[in-house]
Amino acid sequence: MLEPPEILLLGPGPSPSSPYVRRAQSKPQLGHLDPAFVPYLDYAQAGLRRLFGTENTLTLPLAGTGSSGMEAIVANLVEPGDRVVVGVHGVFGVRFADSVRRAGGDVVEVVAEFGQSLDPDAMQAAIAAGPTKLCVVVHAETSTGVLTDLRPIAKAARAAGALFAVDCVTSIGGVPLNFDELGVDAAFCGTQKCLSVPPGLAPVTFSERALERVRARTHPVPFYFDTKLLNGYFGAERSYHYTAPISMIYALVASLEEIEAEGLEARYVRHREVSAALRRGLAPLGLTPLVPVEQATPMLTTVCYPAGVDDAAFRKHLRQQHHIEVGGGLGPLAGKVFRVGLMGHGARLENVLRALAAFGDALAAAGHTPDVSAALAAVHGD
Amino acid sequence: MLEPPEILLLGPGPSPSSPYVRRAQSKPQLGHLDPAFVPYLDYAQAGLRRLFGTENTLTLPLAGTGSSGMEAIVANLVEPGDRVVVGVHGVFGVRFADSVRRAGGDVVEVVAEFGQSLDPDAMQAAIAAGPTKLCVVVHAETSTGVLTDLRPIAKAARAAGALFAVDCVTSIGGVPLNFDELGVDAAFCGTQKCLSVPPGLAPVTFSERALERVRARTHPVPFYFDTKLLNGYFGAERSYHYTAPISMIYALVASLEEIEAEGLEARYVRHREVSAALRRGLAPLGLTPLVPVEQATPMLTTVCYPAGVDDAAFRKHLRQQHHIEVGGGLGPLAGKVFRVGLMGHGARLENVLRALAAFGDALAAAGHTPDVSAALAAVHGD
Repeated sequence: MLEPPEILLLGPGPSPSSPYVRRAQSKPQLGHLDPAFVPYLDYAQAGLRRLFGTENTLTLPLAGTGSSGMEAIVANLVEPGDRVVVGVHGVFGVRFADSVRRAGGDVVEVVAEFGQSLDPDAMQAAIAAGPTKLCVVVHAETSTGVLTDLRPIAKAARAAGALFAVDCVTSIGGVPLNFDELGVDAAFCGTQKCLSVPPGLAPVTFSERALERVRARTHPVPFYFDTKLLNGYFGAERSYHYTAPISMIYALVASLEEIEAEGLEARYVRHREVSAALRRGLAPLGLTPLVPVEQATPMLTTVCYPAGVDDAAFRKHLRQQHHIEVGGGLGPLAGKVFRVGLMGHGARLENVLRALAAFGDALAAAGHTPDVSAALAAVHGD
Repeated sequence: MLEPPEILLLGPGPSPSSPYVRRAQSKPQLGHLDPAFVPYLDYAQAGLRRLFGTENTLTLPLAGTGSSGMEAIVANLVEPGDRVVVGVHGVFGVRFADSVRRAGGDVVEVVAEFGQSLDPDAMQAAIAAGPTKLCVVVHAETSTGVLTDLRPIAKAARAAGALFAVDCVTSIGGVPLNFDELGVDAAFCGTQKCLSVPPGLAPVTFSERALERVRARTHPVPFYFDTKLLNGYFGAERSYHYTAPISMIYALVASLEEIEAEGLEARYVRHREVSAALRRGLAPLGLTPLVPVEQATPMLTTVCYPAGVDDAAFRKHLRQQHHIEVGGGLGPLAGKVFRVGLMGHGARLENVLRALAAFGDALAAAGHTPDVSAALAAVHGD
């Protein structure tokens, strides 16, 4: 019998889903073309547009994990030989570059150290240095917790006549996105971060400019990701492309209802405040965030281990003794940091308190002397 | 508030999920690498191997709808210029051929009329006529209800040194599959047919022979579908490839538990018996199945309309008055037939009785005089 334990998910995702979102998945299934299902699709697509900050018609929850959204962008917007500038300052930039290369794109990487911000001037120079077709940036790097300022890069891309695509997997629902205003031509995300829907959907959006590029392609797009076919189902026609993941879309609708009820601005404020509370509590424990607050994304805080704390033992202690999941470091940060996600339904003060108490306990188990009382007191600020 | 109506899903999919499967999705989320989640993955992969009739290590539920499984096979096993023989006798054969062409494959179609079986001799001749790299067949054509005998085609493919790939979207869990014994090198399916899990997963399996072919490729595989990367997560290593769709995998595990409890053989017998009961009830209503029983797949019965019955009105009557969904015809069969799925949890005698009564009512509304009493009596056989 399926009886998973209750683990508090404070890693880089999945985040905890609310009881309402969880229950939504159990609702009776409908056919993917049923007249009672279509309004849910409409609602989901409208809600996603609001979160992306776009009026793009082709805004939809793709069936697949977040990475499938990346693939959809690459599959539609990259042709062999295309010059593609990719900002690489974490694992997900590396992954995007890899995916573009697999599609035959001529990748120009603009690299920053993991944990550092991308240099907008370097991005701009790389975009301007050749006939750039596409520029790609990860908004909130899940591997480091760095938030990128999209504005100068969007401007540079537009000036060069390049399309601009954004990975907003971790940022959507946690910080404001205004993609139409910035001039973002394509974006993808996952549902398992600040939307607090279980993993399995990749919301994507494509601008009219991006779709023009698709129409001008000389190489075919793989069937599954073809925006023309996707538009048949997710556009006005509602014709069959594939059997949409009904229960996942129920969960997305439920989450969007909750987001609507809370209000977008209130939700962004909550993410900022809860993240700030966590940061205040770290110092008394002897912990320091990797990324300065000005460059950090609120929903994901990467924390440096003090000397002598073993990553695996620390996280095992949290998982076994406190039933808390946090993430380990990735790539060059492996073993040096852990990642704390306060995302969507998980971004709550009680989770910060529980997490800090557990961190203190795990540090004590590693021979440190964290001041847990001070940490918990610091949470509430001045 | 999300409150979908209760519709009896007797179309070509999604099929109704059991209450246990539906509830499974609401269980607390776990991290995709959590030690408590890995046993669920193990269980799901073992159960899928049993259903496919294979010992292939790389057997896994891909995150995406059924079509994503097709794409995974095409992405890994087709290189530009490869000669690929595709059996086309329905919409899903057309789709497979389309996907292969998009990947640069040189498609040789072996065509049969929609509703007819593929000619195994024609398949064999096409396979032998050139240096065939891959042969592709739809096992149970969801657009027509024809079940294909895979044995002679598998034999011809093996004799020619070609790989053999099967679309078993509608057949898995409803009829026995013995892919290792036959020599099937790759197969994909969906979860929303005879497994009665909501749509959103594409179980796939790849033989060692198929993976050798992947290793010998000169063209890269798209990131999302790369079997080498998928094997990192779904193989012994359990490393990160993507964030697996936790709640969907819960549903799959729950369904596999139910399948295990029922027994595979009993499940196949149930699908045959329920389908036979439906067929017996059609004649007194003045309805005839499109496909003779010897060539038909038990889980999906395509029914020809009598003269003067309007497809849209008939199905609307079923949906509005009886809360039953059946499928319309596709391609050349549009308007001429409707499709009745009795799949997985939906393959039950009470659903046959309810469906026949509703069909009778809808036919009467169209001015016909169906003998509903005789239809219901015929369900129970002699």
